[in-house]
Amino acid sequence: MSDTNRKIIDVLNGKTISPPPVWLMRQAGRYLPEYRKTRAEAGSFLDLCYSPDHAVEVTLQPIRRYGFDAAILFSDILVIPDALHRNVTFTEGHGPQMDPIDEAGIFALKDDNGLQHLAPVFETLRRLRQDLPGETTLLGFCGAPWTVATYMIAGHGTTDQAPARLFAYRYPKAFEHLLTFLADLSADYLVAQIDAGADAVQIFDSWAGVLGEEEFDAFCCRPVQRMIASVRARRPGAKVIAFAKGAGMLLKTYRQKTDATAIGLDWTVPLAFARELQKDGPVQGNLDPMRVVAGGKAMEEGIDRILDELGHGPLIFNLGHGITPQADPETVAALVHRVRGISR
Amino acid sequence: MSDTNRKIIDVLNGKTISPPPVWLMRQAGRYLPEYRKTRAEAGSFLDLCYSPDHAVEVTLQPIRRYGFDAAILFSDILVIPDALHRNVTFTEGHGPQMDPIDEAGIFALKDDNGLQHLAPVFETLRRLRQDLPGETTLLGFCGAPWTVATYMIAGHGTTDQAPARLFAYRYPKAFEHLLTFLADLSADYLVAQIDAGADAVQIFDSWAGVLGEEEFDAFCCRPVQRMIASVRARRPGAKVIAFAKGAGMLLKTYRQKTDATAIGLDWTVPLAFARELQKDGPVQGNLDPMRVVAGGKAMEEGIDRILDELGHGPLIFNLGHGITPQADPETVAALVHRVRGISR
Repeated sequence: MSDTNRKIIDVLNGKTISPPPVWLMRQAGRYLPEYRKTRAEAGSFLDLCYSPDHAVEVTLQPIRRYGFDAAILFSDILVIPDALHRNVTFTEGHGPQMDPIDEAGIFALKDDNGLQHLAPVFETLRRLRQDLPGETTLLGFCGAPWTVATYMIAGHGTTDQAPARLFAYRYPKAFEHLLTFLADLSADYLVAQIDAGADAVQIFDSWAGVLGEEEFDAFCCRPVQRMIASVRARRPGAKVIAFAKGAGMLLKTYRQKTDATAIGLDWTVPLAFARELQKDGPVQGNLDPMRVVAGGKAMEEGIDRILDELGHGPLIFNLGHGITPQADPETVAALVHRVRGISR
Repeated sequence: MSDTNRKIIDVLNGKTISPPPVWLMRQAGRYLPEYRKTRAEAGSFLDLCYSPDHAVEVTLQPIRRYGFDAAILFSDILVIPDALHRNVTFTEGHGPQMDPIDEAGIFALKDDNGLQHLAPVFETLRRLRQDLPGETTLLGFCGAPWTVATYMIAGHGTTDQAPARLFAYRYPKAFEHLLTFLADLSADYLVAQIDAGADAVQIFDSWAGVLGEEEFDAFCCRPVQRMIASVRARRPGAKVIAFAKGAGMLLKTYRQKTDATAIGLDWTVPLAFARELQKDGPVQGNLDPMRVVAGGKAMEEGIDRILDELGHGPLIFNLGHGITPQADPETVAALVHRVRGISR
C-alpha cells in the first residue's frame, strides 16, 4: 500500500494542504458511547491496551464515525513503566498509580525483554494497518522520558511534578540515567511500532511546562533528540511529531534541538508565535478542548482563527490537548465539518 | 515614618540595588515550626487569617528569623469569596472548597459591605506597620479576578481550570460580569490595605498559565489593568507587583497592558527573557522552590544564576512560587545569606 494519498504524511513532508487534515488527541475515548461499551467489556484499562481485538476496535471507532485523517494506536504512555515491572494500575477517578522508583531502583533498571511484554501493541498496529482505509495515516506514540519519569518517581500524577523536579535536583546522576534509559527503550519501542505499520509517531511530553529553561533543555530537549536520532539511524526519514505541552516560548529551540518533523501546540500557544514556528516546519494543534465541550460559536470562532492564522502553511488540525469525556459526539462531527469547509 | 530606607520601594521606583532585597512568597508558612505552633492555636485556617493577634504573629515570624526585606500580610486570596458568602472552607489535605457559583448567582452578586467582613485584615496591617522595623516593606495582596473566579466556579482547585474555561465559553456575559465585579471589589480591598499601612501590594494570578492568548488578554490583562487604574485613581503612585504565573511569553504585553509597577516571574521564565522584561521595569523572582528543598549546590547555582543575570537591574529576589512545607528553615537562612553576598 503506497502512502502517497495520506494527507498527514504530505503535511509532515512540508506540504500545505487546504483544508488541512484533522485528527484529535484522545479521539478514541470516553466521549464515544461505543468506546465506553468496548471499555466495559475489556476488563481493566491495561487489559484494553493489551488486547488487540479491543484496542483495534476502539482505535477504529472514531475513524468510522468521523473519517479522521489519522488513527492513533490505542494505548497509554505508561505501558513503558508497566513493561519495566513498576506495577502500573489505572483506577477510575484516581488516575494511574505505580510503585515509586528510587535512586537504587533506577540504577537497577534493565530492559529484560520489555518489548516482548508490548507484543500485543505491535499486533494491534499490524491489524490496524490492514483494516484502515488506505488514505488514513496510522500514528504510533509513546511518552517522552521526562513525562514518563515524573510518574515513575512520584508513583502517580501530580499538579506540578514537584517530586520529579526535586528528585532531579537531589540525584542528578540517577535522574540522567533514568532519562537516558527511557529514551533508549522508547526509541526501540518506536522503531518496533514503525515496523509494525505506524506511518509516523508522536512523542507526548505532557509535563514539559513545569520546568526551568535549563531543566527543559536537559530533561526534554536532549532525551527527545536522542530518541529521534536513534529512530532515524535505524529507520531513515522516520516522521516524528513532538508535543511538549506548556513549553511556550521554548518551542522554537525545542524543534531545532530535537529535529522533530512537526511540533504539537497546546491551546496556550499564541497563533502569531505558532506562525513563527510554522516557518521552520509543520505544526499541529491547537484548539482548546473546552471549546469543543462548549460547542457553538465558541468552537466555531476557535476553529476559524486557527484555519485563518495557520491554514496557509503546513498544518495538522488538532486540539491543544486530549478531547474530554464531556464532549458531545455531535459537536465533534460539527468540528470535522467546519475544518473541512463543509459547514463554514 | 518615612519609607526612604525601604529597599523594595526603591526597587519598585526603578532603582538597582546590589545585593537585591529579598522576600519569599509564602514565607510565613508550614516550613517554620513557630508557624505550625501558632496555626495549631488559632483554630481554622480562616480563623488565623481573621485574628489580628495570630496573623500579626505569623507575619512577623519570618522577619524575626531572616530579616526579609518585606513582610507580606498573612491572609489568603479566597477571603474575597468568603466576604461574598460563598461558604469558603479549608480542609487539611483537600485544599480550599466553597459553594460553586452559577450564572444566576453571578448576576445576583452584590458587595453588601464585604470590606467590613475583612476589617480584621486591615487591623492586622495597622498593627504590622507599627511592629515592623522601619526598613521592612509591608506588602498587602489579593488574588487576581481570573484566579479567584476559577475557584468560585469550580468550587475547589483543579489542575487546569477546565470548569472556569468552559464556563467562560458558555456564559461569556456572566463571566465578564464576575471578573469586573471581582476587579472592582478587589481594587477597593487594595485601597483599604494601602490606607491601613501597606507600602505596596501584590496581585496573584496563579492560574494565568492555562489560558489561550485571547482569554489571557480578556480574563487576566483587562481586569488587572482595571484594578490597578482604579487603585491609582484613588491612591496616586500606588505600587503594584503583578504575578501572572505561567504567562510565559505573554508577560511582555501583560506589563504594558496592566501598567503593573513590577512583574513577578515564575521559575519557568527563561532568564534571557526576564532580562528583556527588566528593560521595561522591575522584576521579582524566580528561584524554583524545589531548589530550596534540595538545598546545597542545586540552590546555590540557582541563586547565583538569577543574581548574575538579573542583579544588574531592578530586582526583588524571590522564589518562582510559594515556599513549600518540605523546606528546611536552615536552608532558607543559607538562601538569604547567599543572596546578600554573605556566603557567596
